[in-house]
Amino acid sequence: MPVFKAEQLRKVGTEIFVAAGAPRGEAEWVSHLLVKSNLVGHDSHGVIRIVQYVKAMEEGYLKPGARVEVVRETPSSALLKGNWGFGQVVAKKAMEIAIDKAVKNTVGTVCAYDLYHIGRLADYTEMAAEKGLIGIAMANSVKSVAPYGGKERLLSTSPMSYAFPTGGETLFVLDIATSVCAEGKVRVALHKGEKLPYGCIIDKEGNPSNNPQDFYDGGALLPLGGDSVGYKGFGLGFVVEVLSGVLSGAGCGYEEGKKGNGIFFQAIDIQRFMPVNEFEKKISAFIQTVKSTKLRPKFREILMPGEPEARTKRERLRDGIYLPDKTWEEIRNTANALGLDLTSMVTHE
Amino acid sequence: MPVFKAEQLRKVGTEIFVAAGAPRGEAEWVSHLLVKSNLVGHDSHGVIRIVQYVKAMEEGYLKPGARVEVVRETPSSALLKGNWGFGQVVAKKAMEIAIDKAVKNTVGTVCAYDLYHIGRLADYTEMAAEKGLIGIAMANSVKSVAPYGGKERLLSTSPMSYAFPTGGETLFVLDIATSVCAEGKVRVALHKGEKLPYGCIIDKEGNPSNNPQDFYDGGALLPLGGDSVGYKGFGLGFVVEVLSGVLSGAGCGYEEGKKGNGIFFQAIDIQRFMPVNEFEKKISAFIQTVKSTKLRPKFREILMPGEPEARTKRERLRDGIYLPDKTWEEIRNTANALGLDLTSMVTHE
Repeated sequence: MPVFKAEQLRKVGTEIFVAAGAPRGEAEWVSHLLVKSNLVGHDSHGVIRIVQYVKAMEEGYLKPGARVEVVRETPSSALLKGNWGFGQVVAKKAMEIAIDKAVKNTVGTVCAYDLYHIGRLADYTEMAAEKGLIGIAMANSVKSVAPYGGKERLLSTSPMSYAFPTGGETLFVLDIATSVCAEGKVRVALHKGEKLPYGCIIDKEGNPSNNPQDFYDGGALLPLGGDSVGYKGFGLGFVVEVLSGVLSGAGCGYEEGKKGNGIFFQAIDIQRFMPVNEFEKKISAFIQTVKSTKLRPKFREILMPGEPEARTKRERLRDGIYLPDKTWEEIRNTANALGLDLTSMVTHE
Repeated sequence: MPVFKAEQLRKVGTEIFVAAGAPRGEAEWVSHLLVKSNLVGHDSHGVIRIVQYVKAMEEGYLKPGARVEVVRETPSSALLKGNWGFGQVVAKKAMEIAIDKAVKNTVGTVCAYDLYHIGRLADYTEMAAEKGLIGIAMANSVKSVAPYGGKERLLSTSPMSYAFPTGGETLFVLDIATSVCAEGKVRVALHKGEKLPYGCIIDKEGNPSNNPQDFYDGGALLPLGGDSVGYKGFGLGFVVEVLSGVLSGAGCGYEEGKKGNGIFFQAIDIQRFMPVNEFEKKISAFIQTVKSTKLRPKFREILMPGEPEARTKRERLRDGIYLPDKTWEEIRNTANALGLDLTSMVTHE
């Protein structure tokens, strides 16, 4: 039951990626974001991915150091070709360009294609909000969600993220899949031998199921809204597929041979509409009102989007990041195969 | 059980608004959109509103003919002050400006405040899609939705709309409330004496209810995702409130004395990313795939967003628009009070 400090895992990730052939700067950034995912509690997007990334590098499908090309550009938009670099590197560049264009021309809209896994959308919308801008992000990947009424997987979980500055320490950061739940939740239930609540998945015949194995046996995730109003989640998922998969040129989740993420990023300069501090004051007041509202029976408090993550981060910075034995073993094997000895980097062996 | 042709109701609406003091051009446009809502099956946004609009004009709160002022402007954005004109008139101008800016500068983002009820968001995103652009719209109004875990109304139904050209006759048009259902559905159930499915509303104590009266007795609508993942709908609703209520300066749903709609509109020029016909071809192929997917038990077909509306429109253009006796009586009374005789405009009396 190994527990690590964040900086230990960052070092581990960086050295593994460098040993596998990544430029050090890219390795540090990717490792930083993976560990950040662990810190905020989204372990499915954390260092567990190191093994997968190294494998993709060895297969030649992920190409660290690839040049990010600007294929099309206007004063308020850009289309980027990632040349299969790290998704985190391409996405960072995409949001930097969006921010730069927003500061100069109010709105920056940037799409990108041919890039590997980008991790959590919140990492990029936060970049905009930290600079006092509005950040918007959508991404698609491989198919896992059925359209409303269908039993076949045709859409990706199609997440959307929005971030706003609040003037306070904690940003407003929404980052949600447009399916009822993300695939990570199904995998966690499977590994723990637990059942899912009904309404998350269907089996391969299209019947409701609470058995996570049914998803992997040809089932599908359900769109947000479930059996009653799943046309809403399906509609939103379709929009995300179009903006991040069609407009970007990355391809849609349902297309044969779909790989990596497609992205649609936007930054909006608040100042062109109102003073930023007035915007922040109004959001703060709104958050205050929401958090002090009367509770429904069985609820103990109202949590704002981003708040559970901020809490988990405080805990894990203090107590460390726990990794399942299997995860740590796989990371260590990957390191060993690259001729790296992790002993000096961690104090747990 | 009066049934009307669309052009009869358009004439009725126009003449009533003109008699109440609206400029003819505005009266025609507002009447056109109200009747369009009836045609596509959204009767709660249809001619039933005529009575409410005339009352608001008489109270001096709705001011037809008001000048729409551009308060702030950049090459890709604008902030409009509606001076309490018809929402439909201000919103049309807002999307026209967004489209114009998108064509010239890739993206046009337009917010507006101090405007009356705008009707359906789809009417404006369609304007962009009909010109081969991407249309995006969000709006807020008075509070009716509880935050996830709360029992008090704090957010409006906060709808979002996205429209894309498809190259075919039917656009892709999503227009959804970020609550499980819109208030109109609750009102319809109440008037019909029917129960709601559980999961749409809570009563004033925060308990699940299927009785529509409980909503009007101090209950609230639930955010999309309901009891299990309602934090998603709450998060989206908060985003809509911020973009259409805070950034626009219109105020949020929860604020004391909140009136009218706040809007956030965007148009994006597809050509700056890819040729429009290629974009349309990919969307068409995606829609084809979705519609031909295998069905779940109990589902008879997959409907795309906008498809139920297009079907109802074909039916009602053919068969006419049915209005409940009470609705028609109220419209006739409003007309009579303005010294108008509707007999010559309709064939049903």
